Amino acid sequence: MAGIEIEALIKSLSKLPGLGPRSARRIALALIKRRETLLEPLAQTLEAAARTVKVCSTCGNFDSVDPCVICSDARRDDAVICVVEDVADVWALERTGAFRGRYHVTGGLLSPLDGIGPGDLKIEKLAARASDPKVKEVILALSATVDGQTTAHYIAERLQGTSAAVSGLAQGMPIGGELDYLDDGTISAALKARRPI
Amino acid sequence: MAGIEIEALIKSLSKLPGLGPRSARRIALALIKRRETLLEPLAQTLEAAARTVKVCSTCGNFDSVDPCVICSDARRDDAVICVVEDVADVWALERTGAFRGRYHVTGGLLSPLDGIGPGDLKIEKLAARASDPKVKEVILALSATVDGQTTAHYIAERLQGTSAAVSGLAQGMPIGGELDYLDDGTISAALKARRPI
Repeated sequence: MAGIEIEALIKSLSKLPGLGPRSARRIALALIKRRETLLEPLAQTLEAAARTVKVCSTCGNFDSVDPCVICSDARRDDAVICVVEDVADVWALERTGAFRGRYHVTGGLLSPLDGIGPGDLKIEKLAARASDPKVKEVILALSATVDGQTTAHYIAERLQGTSAAVSGLAQGMPIGGELDYLDDGTISAALKARRPI
Repeated sequence: MAGIEIEALIKSLSKLPGLGPRSARRIALALIKRRETLLEPLAQTLEAAARTVKVCSTCGNFDSVDPCVICSDARRDDAVICVVEDVADVWALERTGAFRGRYHVTGGLLSPLDGIGPGDLKIEKLAARASDPKVKEVILALSATVDGQTTAHYIAERLQGTSAAVSGLAQGMPIGGELDYLDDGTISAALKARRPI
């Protein structure tokens, strides 16, 4: 109906996460109408990302350089490694500015039901990094789900014998959370981990 | 935080209509992770669209060929021209399959407040097309808004003296619409245009 090149563009846009056929059509039309300000910059940044972005061979983050800017930043603390399941979590933690150590991306969570075992994740690599005596703490910033907690226990066991202490994120009320909107599990965890004020 | 090429990609994605920084980050990460199945096809379709898509010099539709496939389709009816304000409306009408005539895209609506006059729209071009004696009807499929109706009246007047009858879309209840959720204007219009069953 709209020319095969436009149809092909709509089809590849509609495969992006969160976009359906309606938003893909809307974006395709905007791209065609604003070729110089929208389409060409996007084509160039895509091409540059495809050409330069690689996986950091130390931590598993994505960057244009290897090791990534976080791994090669001399101002960051070598004594703490924060373990996350996905690069998106590295970005989320970096946005907070609350963590100044190093990262390690496992690439997923253990999930016996989905057939994901320790060999599918970068856990041996983490164990090798954590065996360096200058690493004092490994923070497991994994999902508060069954798979996340299974993975955390597996990693904690695997790191026994290293000099690193293993910790996990606190569980409790989210900032701005209202008690009657929270699920039972979060309320129970927050109550159990209560602290003096 | 995530390498300048990734940041640039997120920035150009977040300029697309309907995408905020959060969805742009999510899409950027998916593109990087699935380079062969997602990033490269998108880069290729963008490049092909930028290279081939042009405005049809007859009707104003976007296509890889000029005249567009609709204008050059011999099976379509030359006697009816459907006037729309945007290429998105051509696509919407084509999806219904309910119209088999030709199109004319005005490129917008008259809007004295925004300084958009008849010279800014492709109305003279429409008048020239409608003056062909084989054109029997011009359907004004414009928005049911003040600007849309102003534009419809202007075009109807401009086409006086041609052999084409000018019509507009019916106003009434949308299919599946429930009376108590409809606005007063639609209910009034549907009541006024009531018909025997």
